[in-house]
Amino acid sequence: MGALKVKVVARILQANDRIAEENRRRFKEAGVFVINLMGAPGSGKTSLLEKTITALNGRLRLGVIEGDIAGTSDAERIGRLGTPVVQINTGGACHLDANMISEALPDLPLDKLDMVFIENVGNLVCPAEFNVGEDMKAMVLSIAEGHDKPLKYPLMFRESSVLVINKTDLAPYTDTDMAKLKADAASLNPALRVFEVSCRTGEGLDGWAGWLAGLR
Amino acid sequence: MGALKVKVVARILQANDRIAEENRRRFKEAGVFVINLMGAPGSGKTSLLEKTITALNGRLRLGVIEGDIAGTSDAERIGRLGTPVVQINTGGACHLDANMISEALPDLPLDKLDMVFIENVGNLVCPAEFNVGEDMKAMVLSIAEGHDKPLKYPLMFRESSVLVINKTDLAPYTDTDMAKLKADAASLNPALRVFEVSCRTGEGLDGWAGWLAGLR
Repeated sequence: MGALKVKVVARILQANDRIAEENRRRFKEAGVFVINLMGAPGSGKTSLLEKTITALNGRLRLGVIEGDIAGTSDAERIGRLGTPVVQINTGGACHLDANMISEALPDLPLDKLDMVFIENVGNLVCPAEFNVGEDMKAMVLSIAEGHDKPLKYPLMFRESSVLVINKTDLAPYTDTDMAKLKADAASLNPALRVFEVSCRTGEGLDGWAGWLAGLR
Repeated sequence: MGALKVKVVARILQANDRIAEENRRRFKEAGVFVINLMGAPGSGKTSLLEKTITALNGRLRLGVIEGDIAGTSDAERIGRLGTPVVQINTGGACHLDANMISEALPDLPLDKLDMVFIENVGNLVCPAEFNVGEDMKAMVLSIAEGHDKPLKYPLMFRESSVLVINKTDLAPYTDTDMAKLKADAASLNPALRVFEVSCRTGEGLDGWAGWLAGLR
């Protein structure tokens, strides 16, 4: 069974990469910059998107693809801001794959957008293994998750170009060692860009939004 | 490819359940009660185990199996308390399966233990799909993760017998609606037992430890 499993997994990843390339072509044609946003459950991915949409209002035309196992609560939150959004329900799968994104694309007005965020399923592991056609992978980590995450979930820190450390307002009430967190993340990925923000207080969001605006 | 994938997944789960039954038989023979402890990254699973070990000192003989993608930091934390511990590194896999547990068992002195905790990989999704031979599944949720988790990750709330809501000391600094969290969890799993604890302040740990002691 082991060999068969390995063979099937290899075929799945190969098929995924083929569809991811097709997605990338469609994004490029439409002139859209795409960010695959990953992070653990409760790290604050949707809150970050809400704040980002508000901060970039009038500067960039944003669209969002929401990935969840079940439910539509995240898409409803984004939709309330007037931003085009599509909800994908994976029905159990712990990550988004390129085919799910491909099927969601007809529901987004790509030609009228500058940037699309794909909010992945809350999971620090599997989403990092699947390309979906994005230009960049970004991750969100809540300061309440602790400083030991880079060494325990190395792939996501390696695959991401940006790390947004969220909930910095909780810093006084946790034992998270920010210096160790950032040093371990940098040891895995020296090019990793780090932003420290609080979606609750607004701290640091201007810097993040300004940097995003500069990507286009 | 779809049909092949489904067939392989079915075979993998079938093989897993067969090994889980064998593990269960070994645990039963040794008279050990086994809890499969699941939760998102940073929910505080290892901290809860540290506090539980201290609280149950002299009442129950505990052992721990630590599951992580990479690293040994959790096993080192448990080992410092003098508790028998085995570290499993899944090498990328996002959950523990029955075979990994089977291979770890020779390194635990089962005959000298009353209760074994299996700390699963930090992940709110896949661990809930794999039986490993446990008597009970339990989950830890950090209050900082928010109240929307039950409806977004329903399987884990359904599979667990116990929900430990951790980091209650952060309650004044988050917008988590505890009533909604508990109501949604109960709607998915009316029999779910809930404990509210803070591993940082010690609040609620006596009740949790006393309940565990009563399981044996």
